[in-house]
Amino acid sequence: MAYLNENYAKLKAGYLFPEIARRVKTFTEAHPDTAGRVIRCGIGDVTEPLPAACIQALHTAVDELSQPETFRGYGPEQGYHFLRQAIAQHDFRDRGVQVDDDEIFVSDGSKCDCGNILDILGPGNRVAVMDPVYPVYVDTNVMAGNTGEADAHGAYAKIVYLPCTVENGFVPAIPEEPVDLIYLCYPNNPTGTVATLEQLSAWVAYAREHQAIILFDAAYEAFVSSPGIPRSIYEIEGARECAIEFRSFSKNAGFTGLRCAYTVVPKTLQATTRGGEKQAIYSLWVRNHTTKFNGVSYPVQRAAEAVYSPEGREQVDGLIVFYMENARILRQAVSGAGLEVYGGIDAPYIWVRGPEGVPSWTMFDFLLNEADIVTTPGSGFGTAGEGYFRISAFNSRVRAEEAAQRLAALDFTKAG
Amino acid sequence: MAYLNENYAKLKAGYLFPEIARRVKTFTEAHPDTAGRVIRCGIGDVTEPLPAACIQALHTAVDELSQPETFRGYGPEQGYHFLRQAIAQHDFRDRGVQVDDDEIFVSDGSKCDCGNILDILGPGNRVAVMDPVYPVYVDTNVMAGNTGEADAHGAYAKIVYLPCTVENGFVPAIPEEPVDLIYLCYPNNPTGTVATLEQLSAWVAYAREHQAIILFDAAYEAFVSSPGIPRSIYEIEGARECAIEFRSFSKNAGFTGLRCAYTVVPKTLQATTRGGEKQAIYSLWVRNHTTKFNGVSYPVQRAAEAVYSPEGREQVDGLIVFYMENARILRQAVSGAGLEVYGGIDAPYIWVRGPEGVPSWTMFDFLLNEADIVTTPGSGFGTAGEGYFRISAFNSRVRAEEAAQRLAALDFTKAG
Repeated sequence: MAYLNENYAKLKAGYLFPEIARRVKTFTEAHPDTAGRVIRCGIGDVTEPLPAACIQALHTAVDELSQPETFRGYGPEQGYHFLRQAIAQHDFRDRGVQVDDDEIFVSDGSKCDCGNILDILGPGNRVAVMDPVYPVYVDTNVMAGNTGEADAHGAYAKIVYLPCTVENGFVPAIPEEPVDLIYLCYPNNPTGTVATLEQLSAWVAYAREHQAIILFDAAYEAFVSSPGIPRSIYEIEGARECAIEFRSFSKNAGFTGLRCAYTVVPKTLQATTRGGEKQAIYSLWVRNHTTKFNGVSYPVQRAAEAVYSPEGREQVDGLIVFYMENARILRQAVSGAGLEVYGGIDAPYIWVRGPEGVPSWTMFDFLLNEADIVTTPGSGFGTAGEGYFRISAFNSRVRAEEAAQRLAALDFTKAG
Repeated sequence: MAYLNENYAKLKAGYLFPEIARRVKTFTEAHPDTAGRVIRCGIGDVTEPLPAACIQALHTAVDELSQPETFRGYGPEQGYHFLRQAIAQHDFRDRGVQVDDDEIFVSDGSKCDCGNILDILGPGNRVAVMDPVYPVYVDTNVMAGNTGEADAHGAYAKIVYLPCTVENGFVPAIPEEPVDLIYLCYPNNPTGTVATLEQLSAWVAYAREHQAIILFDAAYEAFVSSPGIPRSIYEIEGARECAIEFRSFSKNAGFTGLRCAYTVVPKTLQATTRGGEKQAIYSLWVRNHTTKFNGVSYPVQRAAEAVYSPEGREQVDGLIVFYMENARILRQAVSGAGLEVYGGIDAPYIWVRGPEGVPSWTMFDFLLNEADIVTTPGSGFGTAGEGYFRISAFNSRVRAEEAAQRLAALDFTKAG
């Protein structure tokens, strides 16, 4: 008799974005005449074409696969050395951060990596997540059996939630109870805020003292422009002993449909057996990656390499500037409408506090019905997100400007 | 204190193919003069360029990603409908087998799928594997904690091994003890043999009677040419109630470096809770796939779609014929040298019994040293593979012919 994994029954109703898609579908079906008016500022998906350097690299690599002399079959599961080297050099060593080529593990997505990393971490770890939080961190822990049951508000018994609020500048305080795995994401999704060197240093100090591991999601690091804001957890002294970092080509170079990401696992990072023995987890991740994965598509790895060419870097910088101008326009509109606005300076997300007492999903429906704008309800990211909504700056300029005009014209006092 | 997954410590020394790579490296470094002579018949990796239809589709899709009007970001995690539909139609419905479009889950590799499927299956399942076996089935179960410890021969306490021998035609007998998950692979890796409709029917009957699940790996189905041999487990009546099937574009269309595969999960397939309740596992797999995966690279999905175009099908057929002619040449050479040979008729692998009493790794070293040929030692696939070696037919014609000549010229009585 085959048994199923009963932890899946503990998952709360649909993943956030499918639920949004469902509501948008219902709305557009009910209003077929205005369907073309809907502007999607919900899911953080890029809209602009791939950088020309990446397009060129893809064509060249595809041509290689068309000739017997240059054809390539299986590549190294962890990624081709040309890419691992380019990443370690440009994203880390050129910025004064020590990361070895073979500490880079190329994958097809940060979402996969965030989930798969739990494979090598044992049961019994006490997991801490920021609240609001990217739902994948929580859901993958539910599936892995690390969370216990959810209460009526969707909070899981064994997860430690770290509230991120206006008061703490959206950087959580060190918890009073000990935790073993800590998910941190900066620049932050969903709040669009950043953490300073001092704030991250406090977390690194905590992790080292308690032999905890920080799972640091830096998918949005390319959007940092404010001076002094860390782009990598490894800018903090000692992080190589306590942190894994997740990066992606999705948001900087627009690879959401092309699929390439990477994870940094320092060889100096240790975890503990139940018997109290400390072991490097590097070899476990190598084994996981080589046994359950067969590497990223070769042309895609060449496209990722091209991100680091002089032309590629210039083109990616252009994309960042483009989306951040959208963010500025949208931020100004919502702020002008009298709402409290956070983020959107060093990240492509704007975190907006709705009028007092208006629940997130009510605001979601209000924005969809009154302005034909799709946002993401803050409560979808956790209890501390209630009353907020997220606006994504990933859009064409025309649509960002149109969305800004509609938002500026709204009477938010009618949202409740 | 962060705990690691201690099950990884139960894994036996390196995955088979890294160990082969290590020995080959040592050999070529010791014999730099003959390094160019080495012919790799070990890992089953394709050598011929991608079909022209796939190359064309890749270029077109890449161009789409270069223009704002046709750019695509995140796609559906389970795969674009154009591909799911093409697969279900051509691989199943056109052959009289009922599979719905939304029962197809497109992924970046069968290796990933074989590992990830365990996410949705609970602890406590009794796992049966063929012996010899593709090591990934076993290793992913070790990591998931389903196996217990290995004995001195590398056999895990809680795994039920199903010997595949000359006597049973390399199709295992139904075990005496009850099992819950059964890995079957036909056409078989590593033995290159196939199972008849009657043989697979016996397993389906067993699985239905015991409410077990068959994990059916059909990665090599395209190589079947003998009449009446099933290409899919779903050709057997009732399999939709007890089987998951894994397929890949790696071996038919040469996508080992491009990365695309798929898994079939019928909506009619159920598993059991500890409380004895039966549930469809379809929704669990949807949740897993959408939460931990972000879809296959868009151009790669277009290339996979092109496999089903009239040109693509003709070109893929050409690749199959090409590799199977290699198999015929190699099979004849080894057979002519006086060894017992199996497989290589409906699969690109030839399974060779070495001279009595010669261990697999001894034979591996003999073939490497005396003929500069890399094979795969049978014992690397399990205890029942001891004394055998596997020859892969994936090679250029020139190299396959050269390997055949060297094998034919060897005095195998000196192997011991």
